[in-house]
Amino acid sequence: MAMTELPMEKAFMLIEPGPVILVTTNHKGRNNMMTISWHMVMDFTPKIAMTTGPWNYSFQALINSKECVLAIPAIDLAEKVVGIGSCSGAEVDKFTKFGLTALPAAEVKAPLVSECLACLECRVTEYLEAHDIFVLQGVRAWIDQERTERRTFHANGDGTFVVDGNTINLRSLMEEKIPPGV
Amino acid sequence: MAMTELPMEKAFMLIEPGPVILVTTNHKGRNNMMTISWHMVMDFTPKIAMTTGPWNYSFQALINSKECVLAIPAIDLAEKVVGIGSCSGAEVDKFTKFGLTALPAAEVKAPLVSECLACLECRVTEYLEAHDIFVLQGVRAWIDQERTERRTFHANGDGTFVVDGNTINLRSLMEEKIPPGV
Repeated sequence: MAMTELPMEKAFMLIEPGPVILVTTNHKGRNNMMTISWHMVMDFTPKIAMTTGPWNYSFQALINSKECVLAIPAIDLAEKVVGIGSCSGAEVDKFTKFGLTALPAAEVKAPLVSECLACLECRVTEYLEAHDIFVLQGVRAWIDQERTERRTFHANGDGTFVVDGNTINLRSLMEEKIPPGV
Repeated sequence: MAMTELPMEKAFMLIEPGPVILVTTNHKGRNNMMTISWHMVMDFTPKIAMTTGPWNYSFQALINSKECVLAIPAIDLAEKVVGIGSCSGAEVDKFTKFGLTALPAAEVKAPLVSECLACLECRVTEYLEAHDIFVLQGVRAWIDQERTERRTFHANGDGTFVVDGNTINLRSLMEEKIPPGV
């Protein structure tokens, strides 16, 4: 594993395709993580929204620490990612249970996940209680450029997941829509 | 094309994987559509969030008509979808320009897109102005069960798009997380 810094101009690209992600937190000295698919980019800085609420154990950590890391797993981690989404940090240390490695982040206490493809350090800037939406500001991004398996995966919602296939390049059709530095 | 009804319990599955989608509107008797990737599921009813604002021509149609249709294109429509995202309904009739067919929806004036894989009729229930988030309530869903090309695609943000690849089934690991009827 060798996470190298990803320019913030490109950080929104980690979330834009809509992959299943892990959200790590650190609260009262304890690391935890959850699995979510309900997230979206809000701007290129990047500002990101995610839906979660008090029914998740990570909620209190997000509210109190006001920090998290969004970690992007590749398909070789799919079973662990689903397992992480199916148990509670109230009962288990998920890093230990799933054999994942917490690495120190640069700007937040929430940890990076060493085995993931990329990580985005975020501050919680707002919680929209009426809609259970957390608004996050990405502050630092990391990517493992050496990782062999780079395909992410997307939840269908029924317990099946679609894995990244081919990439097509339509950049010539939308040059004016692509932000600077991307 | 033969759109058949998709049970509302499954409608969130159209958005959950994070595909590029079209958003159609009807305002002052005129159909329009735009392309977005910035959306997320908020609950299983389904409630959906999407980020857009006054910089998009569709904004006024969303604010005034309080209705839209989220249409899910497959990969064979990728060039049209990018084209739709790169011009303004203020200047062109996008259905005509891109050779797409507007079909009447059941509950809203915004049209279905006949060539898409699936469509979700929505009401705009709220606009969170401080965050440029529209909150949508899905009310009726349709899917073309006969369409041959069913692979959707996801924006990377740099003009490239990742196409759906294999599907993996991890349902046995997360039975208790799957909502009724899915």
